[in-house]
Amino acid sequence: MVALGGSDIERLIAMLSRLPGLGPRSARRAALYLLREPQTRLAPLSRAMDSAARSVRTCSTCGTLDTTDPCTICADPERDRGLVCVVETVGDLWALERAGIHRGVYQVLGGTLSALAGMGPDDLNTAPLFARIKAGGVREVILALAATVEGATTAHWLQERLAPTGVAVSRVGHGVPMGGALDVLDDGTLAAALTARRPA
Amino acid sequence: MVALGGSDIERLIAMLSRLPGLGPRSARRAALYLLREPQTRLAPLSRAMDSAARSVRTCSTCGTLDTTDPCTICADPERDRGLVCVVETVGDLWALERAGIHRGVYQVLGGTLSALAGMGPDDLNTAPLFARIKAGGVREVILALAATVEGATTAHWLQERLAPTGVAVSRVGHGVPMGGALDVLDDGTLAAALTARRPA
Ligand SMILES: [Zn+2]
Ligand SMILES: [Zn+2]
Repeated sequence: MVALGGSDIERLIAMLSRLPGLGPRSARRAALYLLREPQTRLAPLSRAMDSAARSVRTCSTCGTLDTTDPCTICADPERDRGLVCVVETVGDLWALERAGIHRGVYQVLGGTLSALAGMGPDDLNTAPLFARIKAGGVREVILALAATVEGATTAHWLQERLAPTGVAVSRVGHGVPMGGALDVLDDGTLAAALTARRPA
Repeated sequence: MVALGGSDIERLIAMLSRLPGLGPRSARRAALYLLREPQTRLAPLSRAMDSAARSVRTCSTCGTLDTTDPCTICADPERDRGLVCVVETVGDLWALERAGIHRGVYQVLGGTLSALAGMGPDDLNTAPLFARIKAGGVREVILALAATVEGATTAHWLQERLAPTGVAVSRVGHGVPMGGALDVLDDGTLAAALTARRPA
């Protein structure tokens, strides 16, 4: 690899190319876009990243990323705390929030059970959910997991653990394509899946 | 749009989605990737951007971006200063450097003549090229412009301005597809185009 304008520029391109969705070519294009106007493009993005890096935290209640703990959703008095939607990732939570169809709160597992990925029950962020159930006030848990083997295994395992609590458990049903992840679905599909939920 | 975890996170996603090649979805994925490990991913990228923003400059000789002025290429005693390759953008220069086929130096125009884009002769960075020619030592100017209407118009205009100087002028010929930009070509095509250059 030849020098692309000094080590600072090369390092920037190398780091950008590690971002998901950016290959080497788009990393170079993005770097050029930023470098062409360093004061109005590069410096503000650097400041936004620095600010986010200092302020981001994981909500100790639901496990999402936010700048406050509890997060905006958990702290919102208008959200229905009796209705907890269980998702795998923060990206899934964001997808449901963009669709604007869930008026309750969330539990972000941070993964699904997977022997291959070495994810066991202890690796899932479920303790806050059971603590909330124990504290009372949770009526229903909606399992909004991907229609994959891992998602189904995780849903089944959670359902068994939730059964003794007496809380109603439902799963998003129609709408989630087989093998599909939640966060690539359009809002309409997500809405259909959530509305058509059925007892697990 | 609902809150995606606080204004710092939303601002980061909004700024990332402005990068060329990143839509809203990939901006969210990139933000999540960075936010998941703020200290090892987000903070280092922020520092790399800040460092690049402070160090990047435009080479006053050739017009490329680098952390030094003159740039690494212009300062390299092993480059042939008698052979100047004229390109539209820094991205085109990078493409030729990656291919490793040009042993001379460059002139980055920063655009092409375009009535639509409001780019006239005064908007092109050509003064350093003519200053170099006037100072002596330039044997040949290679016009490596895109095979577009604007590229051809710019090449023609430059050729007319270069004619009185007595410097040999050539154009990259075979290999550049019609309507194609230089910086998306593979190394082999670039090498063929440069090797097969002909007098303009
Ligand atoms: Zn929360
Ligand atoms: Zn230079």
